Amino acid sequence: MAKITAPNTADIKDYQLKLEQYRREHEKLQILLNITHNISRELDLSKLLMLIMDEVKTVLQCDRCTVFVLNRETGELWSRVAHGEKEIRFPSHLGIAGFVATSGEVLNIPDAYADERFNPNIDKKTGYVTRTILAVPMRNKLSEIIGVFQSLNKIGGPFCQDDIELLDAISSIAATQIENAQLYAEQKKTFDSFIETLATTIDARDPLTAGHSRRIALYADEIARVLNLGDSEREVLRTAALLHDYGKIAVREAILTKEGKLTDEEFKHIQHHPYYTRTILEKINFSRALKDVPMIAASHHEKLDGSGYPQGLIEREIPKLGKILAVVDVFDALTSKRHYRDRMNLTQVLGILSQGANTHFDDFFIAAFKKIPLSRLVEILEDDHQKDLDLNDLEELGKSDISALLSALESPSPDGHQLAMMKQFNHYYSRDYLQGKKNSKTASPIKFTGKEE
Amino acid sequence: MAKITAPNTADIKDYQLKLEQYRREHEKLQILLNITHNISRELDLSKLLMLIMDEVKTVLQCDRCTVFVLNRETGELWSRVAHGEKEIRFPSHLGIAGFVATSGEVLNIPDAYADERFNPNIDKKTGYVTRTILAVPMRNKLSEIIGVFQSLNKIGGPFCQDDIELLDAISSIAATQIENAQLYAEQKKTFDSFIETLATTIDARDPLTAGHSRRIALYADEIARVLNLGDSEREVLRTAALLHDYGKIAVREAILTKEGKLTDEEFKHIQHHPYYTRTILEKINFSRALKDVPMIAASHHEKLDGSGYPQGLIEREIPKLGKILAVVDVFDALTSKRHYRDRMNLTQVLGILSQGANTHFDDFFIAAFKKIPLSRLVEILEDDHQKDLDLNDLEELGKSDISALLSALESPSPDGHQLAMMKQFNHYYSRDYLQGKKNSKTASPIKFTGKEE
Repeated sequence: MAKITAPNTADIKDYQLKLEQYRREHEKLQILLNITHNISRELDLSKLLMLIMDEVKTVLQCDRCTVFVLNRETGELWSRVAHGEKEIRFPSHLGIAGFVATSGEVLNIPDAYADERFNPNIDKKTGYVTRTILAVPMRNKLSEIIGVFQSLNKIGGPFCQDDIELLDAISSIAATQIENAQLYAEQKKTFDSFIETLATTIDARDPLTAGHSRRIALYADEIARVLNLGDSEREVLRTAALLHDYGKIAVREAILTKEGKLTDEEFKHIQHHPYYTRTILEKINFSRALKDVPMIAASHHEKLDGSGYPQGLIEREIPKLGKILAVVDVFDALTSKRHYRDRMNLTQVLGILSQGANTHFDDFFIAAFKKIPLSRLVEILEDDHQKDLDLNDLEELGKSDISALLSALESPSPDGHQLAMMKQFNHYYSRDYLQGKKNSKTASPIKFTGKEE
Repeated sequence: MAKITAPNTADIKDYQLKLEQYRREHEKLQILLNITHNISRELDLSKLLMLIMDEVKTVLQCDRCTVFVLNRETGELWSRVAHGEKEIRFPSHLGIAGFVATSGEVLNIPDAYADERFNPNIDKKTGYVTRTILAVPMRNKLSEIIGVFQSLNKIGGPFCQDDIELLDAISSIAATQIENAQLYAEQKKTFDSFIETLATTIDARDPLTAGHSRRIALYADEIARVLNLGDSEREVLRTAALLHDYGKIAVREAILTKEGKLTDEEFKHIQHHPYYTRTILEKINFSRALKDVPMIAASHHEKLDGSGYPQGLIEREIPKLGKILAVVDVFDALTSKRHYRDRMNLTQVLGILSQGANTHFDDFFIAAFKKIPLSRLVEILEDDHQKDLDLNDLEELGKSDISALLSALESPSPDGHQLAMMKQFNHYYSRDYLQGKKNSKTASPIKFTGKEE
C-alpha cells in the first residue's frame, strides 16, 4: 500500500500546470464548439464565408482573415470581400494563398515583406500594410485541399503555435460547411437555369415572343429593387415572371403563331393560357418559399377593375406581385421588336400604361417602373445584344431614369442635357447601333425557326 | 505579499476535485465536438437521422435512440427506422414524444410502464421491453420545437443529470443540421417535381404520348434496380428519361399530332427532336452529378449498328444509360394504349425487342428488362390507374418476372401456375379491369384536350 506522505510544493506545481493545461484545452474546445455551432446555421455560401472570416478574426485576435475557395475547374482561388457583392479571384498558384493551396503546407510568416512568395501589389493598391501572415490549407473529409485560410496582422506580435492549431481545427470544420453550402448552391443554380431555359423554350415557339419571359423577369426585378423588396419576395417574383406564360404550351400552335386577326373563338382560346399556367404550375411541389408562384404567375392578365382574365379578380384580390407582372408584361409586348418594323414610340408606350392606371394597372407600380435607370432599361430592351452595348453610354444613361426621359420627350423645348439623353437612348431604342452588324441580330439563346442541322 | 506556506492535504483535495471537474467537462466538449463534426458532413435527411441516432446511442450508452421530426403541416411526428426505407409516423400529441413535442418539457422516466403517458402498444407488437426513457425537445435557432430526441434503456441504470445535459446540447446541434438537410431536400423536391411536371406537359401536347416520359423513367429505374446501379447513376437515368423528349417542344404541332402517314420531310423534322433535346438541355447549368443528362437524353434513338439518329453513333459510342432508354422508349411506344384499339400483343412486343438485339438494342439491357417483376410492369403500364389495381393481384404477380411470363406465353402446354399468371396479367394488360369504370379512364395528371373551363 502506498504510504500517505505530506504533499510538497512540487506536487502543487504539477497540479497547477495540469490545471492550466486543461483550462487552455477547455477554452479551445469551447471556441471550436461555438464556431461550429454558429457557422453550421448558414447554408448561403457568400454569407457563410463572411461569417467564418468574422469568427476567425475575433478568435485569433488578428486584423483580417480571408477564406479562399479553390475552384478546380477554373484553376482559381476566390473569396468574398467584406461590404457589397465584390469578390477576389486569381490563379490558384499565386501568392501566399497559392503556395499553400498547391503545397498543402502551413505558412507562419513573421515578416511578409521579407518573404519572396508575398505579393505586395495588393497592399500598394489598397494602402494596407501586411506584417504577419498565417495561412493554412482547408481540407475536406477526403483530405483534398478545397481552399486556404489566411489571417493577417495578429494583434500584439506574430502568430504562435496555438494559433496554428486553432486555425487548423477551424478550417477543417469550415470545410464541411462550405462543401454543404456549395452543394446547396449548385442545386439551386441547376433549378434556376432550368426555369430560365424552360421560359426561353416556351417563348421560342413564337418568334414574336422570343426572350419575352426573361425580359419581364428582369424588368420585374428592377421594380423590386426600386421598391426595396426582400430577397425572398424578389425570388418569387423572378420565378413567377419566368413562368408566367408556361400555359402557352397548351395553346394550339396554329393560333399562337397566326398572322392577322384572331377570331373571337381563337382569342378566347389564347386567353386560357394563364389558367393553364396555374393548372400546370400547381402540379409542382414548390418549396414553402415559392408556394405562391402559381397564383402570381397566373394573375398577369388580371385588371384592377375586374375586366381581366382568367378569374376577373378586382384590385384587392390581385396579388401585389401579379400587379407588377401586369405592368412589365404589357410594356415588353409593346416595346418588343417586330420583324421589319420599328418599336412603338416610347411616349406612346408609356401613355398606354398611364391610360390604364387604376383601371388596368396599379399606378403605384407604374411609378416604380418609371424609376428604373435608363441604363438598365436599355440593357433589358436589348437583352440579346449585351455585347454590342457601349459601357460609356450605359454609365451615362445610368444617371437618369425613365421618368426623366419621359419629361424630356414631352418637353416642348428640351435643354442640352435632355437632348443628349434622348439621342443616346434612341440610338439603342431604335437599334441604330446595329447598323452593319447583321450577324449579331440572330444571337438568340434557343432558336427553333432556323435551319435544322 | 502572500506568505508562502507549506501545502496541506486540503489544498490537494481541492486541486483533485477541480481537475476531475475539468476532465469531465473536457470529455463532454470533446464528445459534442466530435458529434458536430460527424453530423455536419451529412446533408441527406434520412442518412443524417440514422447517423445522429447511432451517435447518441454510443455516447449515452443506451439501447436505442430515436429522433422524431415534427411536421407542422401534417401535425405528425415521424422518424426513420434502422434498416431499410421504413419510417414511423404518428399524430404529434401522442405518447411520450408527443408530450415532449407539445409541452417542451424534458422527461426522464425511470420506469416506462409506471408512466401513464407511455404507450405500450409498440412494445407489444415488437416484443421489445422499454424500461427507462429520456426524451428532450429539439429546438431550432428560433427556439421553435422541431422534433424530439428519445433515448431508451440506459445500460446499467436510469438516465442521470449528465445525460440530460448532453442530450440537450446534442439536440441543439442536431436541430441546425436537420434544418439544413430539410432545406436541401425541399429544394431537391421542387426541382424533381418541376422536371416531372415539364415531362408531363410536353407529353400532353400529343394525346398519344400522354404519360410516356414518366413511364419510361419508371421502366428505366426498374432496369437500374435489376442491375444494381448506384444512386447517382439512377438519378441521372431518371432525369434523362423524364427529359428525353423535351426537344419535341420544337417540333411543329401539326406534324406531331398528324393522323396517318408522315411525308419523308415530316418524318425527318420529327427525327430532329433528340437533337433539340440536347441543344435545349445543354443550356441548363446542370450540377456535376447531372452533367451527362443532355447527352444521355439525346441518345435514346441511337442504334448499336449506327443507323439511329441524330448522330448515328455506334455501339461503343452510345452511353450506357442511353442504351437503357432505347429499350424502354420502344417498349412503351408499343404498349401504350391507343384510343379504340387494344395494346399490341405482349409476345409480339418482346419479339420486336429481341429482333432488334445487337443491331438496335443492347441485348444485355433487354435481358435486364425481362427481369422486371410483373407487379411493377403492371403498375407502370397502368400508371394512370394506380387506385384501380388490386393489391392481392400485385402481390401474386410480384412473384414472377417478364421472362417467366414470356415462357408461359410461348409454351405450347402451359401448366396451371402459368395459366393463372397469364390470366391475371392479361386482366390488366387488356384493361378488362376497367369495365364499368368509364370515369377513371380520364384520370390524367394534365389534360389539354378536354373542355376548357
